[in-house]
Amino acid sequence: MARFFVTASNIFGGVAYLDGKDLEHIKALRIKRGETFTVCGGGRDYVCRIDGEGAGSPRVKIISAAASRGEPAISCAVYAAFSKSDRLETVIQKTVELGASRIVVFPSSRCVSRPEGVSLLRKTARWNKISEEAAKQSGRGRIPKVSIAPSFVAAVRSAAKADLPLFFYEEERALGFSAALQFRENPETVSVFTGPEDGFTPEEAAEAVLSGMLSVTMGPRILRCETAPVCAISAVMFYTGNL
Amino acid sequence: MARFFVTASNIFGGVAYLDGKDLEHIKALRIKRGETFTVCGGGRDYVCRIDGEGAGSPRVKIISAAASRGEPAISCAVYAAFSKSDRLETVIQKTVELGASRIVVFPSSRCVSRPEGVSLLRKTARWNKISEEAAKQSGRGRIPKVSIAPSFVAAVRSAAKADLPLFFYEEERALGFSAALQFRENPETVSVFTGPEDGFTPEEAAEAVLSGMLSVTMGPRILRCETAPVCAISAVMFYTGNL
Repeated sequence: MARFFVTASNIFGGVAYLDGKDLEHIKALRIKRGETFTVCGGGRDYVCRIDGEGAGSPRVKIISAAASRGEPAISCAVYAAFSKSDRLETVIQKTVELGASRIVVFPSSRCVSRPEGVSLLRKTARWNKISEEAAKQSGRGRIPKVSIAPSFVAAVRSAAKADLPLFFYEEERALGFSAALQFRENPETVSVFTGPEDGFTPEEAAEAVLSGMLSVTMGPRILRCETAPVCAISAVMFYTGNL
Repeated sequence: MARFFVTASNIFGGVAYLDGKDLEHIKALRIKRGETFTVCGGGRDYVCRIDGEGAGSPRVKIISAAASRGEPAISCAVYAAFSKSDRLETVIQKTVELGASRIVVFPSSRCVSRPEGVSLLRKTARWNKISEEAAKQSGRGRIPKVSIAPSFVAAVRSAAKADLPLFFYEEERALGFSAALQFRENPETVSVFTGPEDGFTPEEAAEAVLSGMLSVTMGPRILRCETAPVCAISAVMFYTGNL
């Protein structure tokens, strides 16, 4: 069944208001009056069908609605440092499939790549497109937003607001991942924060801890910068019963 | 510290016997007499140094040995169906980083790609090279072997020998991943078995169950064929305390 995404504000009065691109897509798919398809908005799935015309466009009537099966019960934000572009693309695609609520890309001292200006705008658009495609393909109920934090400190302060803010640090030896997850019973929000190719500096780790994050080890093996967030969100979703 | 890999049989009499390529590498790195480096063999890390010459080659004397910190306590084999080459490369690289004991690639009904003959030999060599590089980079204590199963049935029968053989099936609705992991207390061996781009057929799922595997769901979201094994081994390593 075809799936279309709208913002929650485009659902009202028992009708879903799709944008022009999606209406053309419906036409291209030759979806006929009476045939059902799914419109996703704000974490809910709406079974819809076309039941007439309104202002020259097909009217998309909502038949039934339910919480989206593809949306996890927990909100897990992924904070990933700038790294080579294909690596970030992997992170975005995979963590959206696995249920990330949003992705924040941030600068850090050891980043080898740090786009700016027009290049960053272009990349951000591309990353959001990758998120949209991954959300559609994996059956998510909404499209996680990819945004850019202006600085490392801003990223840390934003991530620290989660019930369980996890800062994954290669040099951490004391606090294990499993122990960290047990720090809060039934957290509603989790953030997973991972570094660039060469990891975080000790100063960055100190900044994160001072901001209220837990410094956590992901074990004795050195994970690539694009593997760590995928592993982290897999374990969070598994542990919280969302796999 | 530099890390070199040998098979366990190349360690005896307090000496590590490195192959020509590694001896050249030692030369290239300008490792001098008395400097220490690590030789990994059979899941153990040996701190070594060159203490002289034997038959024209530097003699690599073992100073101390310990179980490799990078080796998980559990043996988790990854069975991945043939899929597009870059996807399988991702699976191999990521699951080796995450602690896979070995990787078995197998054919299945809905595989879109299924190399044979010389092409398969070349790919297998390449996949083993990727495993070697990932093992070195992530600090593993041995290099997981990548092999090819001759048929789907052969793959299923081999995977079914694990204490906990997990067959991930998109159409499975009953048995969750977490419940499945609780089926065996302290398993020593786990196998995770995942399908190609278009998933397994019902006949293949039946074959797996008849062979003694557990048919398991990885949750409501549809994961890409290269994401599923990475997620599966992350959760297994997390659950068994190996992250």
